[in-house]
Amino acid sequence: MSLLVVGSVAFDAIETPFGRVDRTLGGAASYFSLAASHFVPVRLVGIVGEDFTQKDEAIFQGRKIDLTGLEHVAGKSFFWSGRYSQNMNERTTLATELNVFAAFQPTLPATYLDSQYIFLGNIDPTLQRSVLKQIRRKPKVVGLDTMNFWIDGTPAELRETLKHVQILTINDDETRQLTGEHNLFRAARHVFKMGPKTLIIKRGEHGAVMVHKDFVFSVPAFPLEEVHDPTGAGDTFAGGFMGYLTSKGRINEQTLRSAMVYGSVLASFTVERFGVERLATVKRKEIVARARQFARLTSFKL
Amino acid sequence: MSLLVVGSVAFDAIETPFGRVDRTLGGAASYFSLAASHFVPVRLVGIVGEDFTQKDEAIFQGRKIDLTGLEHVAGKSFFWSGRYSQNMNERTTLATELNVFAAFQPTLPATYLDSQYIFLGNIDPTLQRSVLKQIRRKPKVVGLDTMNFWIDGTPAELRETLKHVQILTINDDETRQLTGEHNLFRAARHVFKMGPKTLIIKRGEHGAVMVHKDFVFSVPAFPLEEVHDPTGAGDTFAGGFMGYLTSKGRINEQTLRSAMVYGSVLASFTVERFGVERLATVKRKEIVARARQFARLTSFKL
Repeated sequence: MSLLVVGSVAFDAIETPFGRVDRTLGGAASYFSLAASHFVPVRLVGIVGEDFTQKDEAIFQGRKIDLTGLEHVAGKSFFWSGRYSQNMNERTTLATELNVFAAFQPTLPATYLDSQYIFLGNIDPTLQRSVLKQIRRKPKVVGLDTMNFWIDGTPAELRETLKHVQILTINDDETRQLTGEHNLFRAARHVFKMGPKTLIIKRGEHGAVMVHKDFVFSVPAFPLEEVHDPTGAGDTFAGGFMGYLTSKGRINEQTLRSAMVYGSVLASFTVERFGVERLATVKRKEIVARARQFARLTSFKL
Repeated sequence: MSLLVVGSVAFDAIETPFGRVDRTLGGAASYFSLAASHFVPVRLVGIVGEDFTQKDEAIFQGRKIDLTGLEHVAGKSFFWSGRYSQNMNERTTLATELNVFAAFQPTLPATYLDSQYIFLGNIDPTLQRSVLKQIRRKPKVVGLDTMNFWIDGTPAELRETLKHVQILTINDDETRQLTGEHNLFRAARHVFKMGPKTLIIKRGEHGAVMVHKDFVFSVPAFPLEEVHDPTGAGDTFAGGFMGYLTSKGRINEQTLRSAMVYGSVLASFTVERFGVERLATVKRKEIVARARQFARLTSFKL
C-alpha cells in the first residue's frame, strides 16, 4: 500500500529565538513524506529547481520515498523565509518566492496511477483536483490541506475539490474562515456537507481535534520544554496521520484515533529541532515510545 | 470530610452574543461551592451586603453548603459587569465594584477550624494566608487561585502564601507572568520551587493541563456546540476538582487525574447557560454520564 502526496518541496530560511538557518530543506511534501515513510512507502509529487542538488535529495534516500514524481526544471526552487517571535506564538513571513512552483502542473508518473491513498498538500485546489483526475481508480482515502489564501481566493475551486475529499486537515482559523462559523463543532457540520466526513483541526501547542459524524477525538500536544522551530509541524502531523492510516488499510474509529496520536507523535519530534533535522533522524523505537507516553498523558480511570 | 473555600460571592451583569443578564449570582466562591457540593460538604467563607436576600441564598440551600462563614454586612455586595465579544474569545470588564468586599477580613467560624481541605479563591494573598493561619491543624491539601492583579501588585505576599500551597490553579498567561517563563513545562519547575507541587493550567476552550513532578496530564474541553456564557468556568473547574479530590480523601496520581476530568465536566455544564443557572440544576447522573463521554473523547488503542 503506497501513499501519494502532492505538495511543495522548498528551501526555508528560519529564525527563532533558538537560532537561525539560511537554507534548509522544507516544504509540506518534504515534512509529510519523511513522517509518512515511517509507516508506508510514499510517492512524492512536486517540483524543484536546479538549486536542488543530489546532496539535498540524499535526505529522502534510504527511506521508502519514491521521487519519480519529483520534477526537476530550470530555475530556483520554492523559497520561504520566516521569523518567529520571542514567544514562538507569532510568525512573520519575510519572503515567499514561488520560483519554479509558479508554473507547477503536477503530472503523475505511470507507476503512481494506481495510488489508493492520497494526500493533497496545500496548493491551488485546481491542481489538487488535477492529481485526483489522473488516478486510475476511485481512491480509498483522499486527505486535503489548504489555507486562507485558497479559502479566500479560489473558494469555488476549493469547494469543487472538497467534494472528492474524505479527510480535511486545517487549523482553527481556517475552519472558521471556510465555514463562516466560529464554533468548531458546528463548523464541522458545514464541512461534512462539503464532502469530507472527517475534519481534523490542528491547534499547534493545543494539540488537535478530530470531528467525525459519530465521534469527537481530542489529542493534546506533547509536553516539550523546548520547541526550537514549529515550521512543518502541521505537515508532519498530516504525514504521520496518513502514513499510519494507510499502513492499517482500513478507516474506522479505532484507526482514525490512533492515526491522530501518531501524527502528534511525529509532529512533536519535528519541532524539537530546525527544519527536518529531527524528523530525519528519529527512529521507529522513539516513535513507539513517545506514542506510549501520549497514552500516559491522557489516560485516567473514573 | 469538608472542603473550605474562601472567595467572592457577587452579583454579575453579563452580556454575550446569546443574551444578557443584569443581576445574576456570581463570584468565585459561588461557582466553586455549587460544583464542589456534588462531591462533599462545602464550608463557604465570604462576605455579602444587604442586597443579598434570602431569595439569593436559596440557591445554596438544599445542598451540602455551609453558609455559617458567609458574613452579612451593611452596604452592597461585590458587583462585576462584563461583555463577551461576538466570538466569545475576548471579554471586556465594564465595571468592578468591590463594595463590601473592599473591607473583607475573612473570619472562620469555630465549626470551620478543623478543615483539612482548603481552597483559597482569587483574593488578596494576605487574606488567603490569614485563612490558613486560623486553621487549627496543618491542612491535608491547600489549593489556590490567583490573577495578574496580585501577581503584579503583591508579588512578595503571593510568594509567602504559595509556600503553604500544594495545588495552584491558574491560566496560561498567569503562569507565564508568575514565573517569567514562556514555556509552560519549564514554568512549572519554577512553580514547584515556590511551594505547589501540582500546577493546573486552565486553558478555556483548550481544556486544562496538570503538571506534576512525576507526570503531566492533559484534558480537553468538552465539545459543545453552544457556549452561552464562559463566566465562572475556571471557578467551577476548581470546585469540581477539589470536591472530587476531597471526596477521595487521598491525593495520588490517579485521584488527581480523575479530579481533572470532574473539574472539566462541571465547567462544561456551567458554560451552557448564564451564570450559575445550569450548575444549579445539573444532576449527579448527568455528571457521571459526561465524565464517561470525556473518556470516549480521549481514549485510543495503540
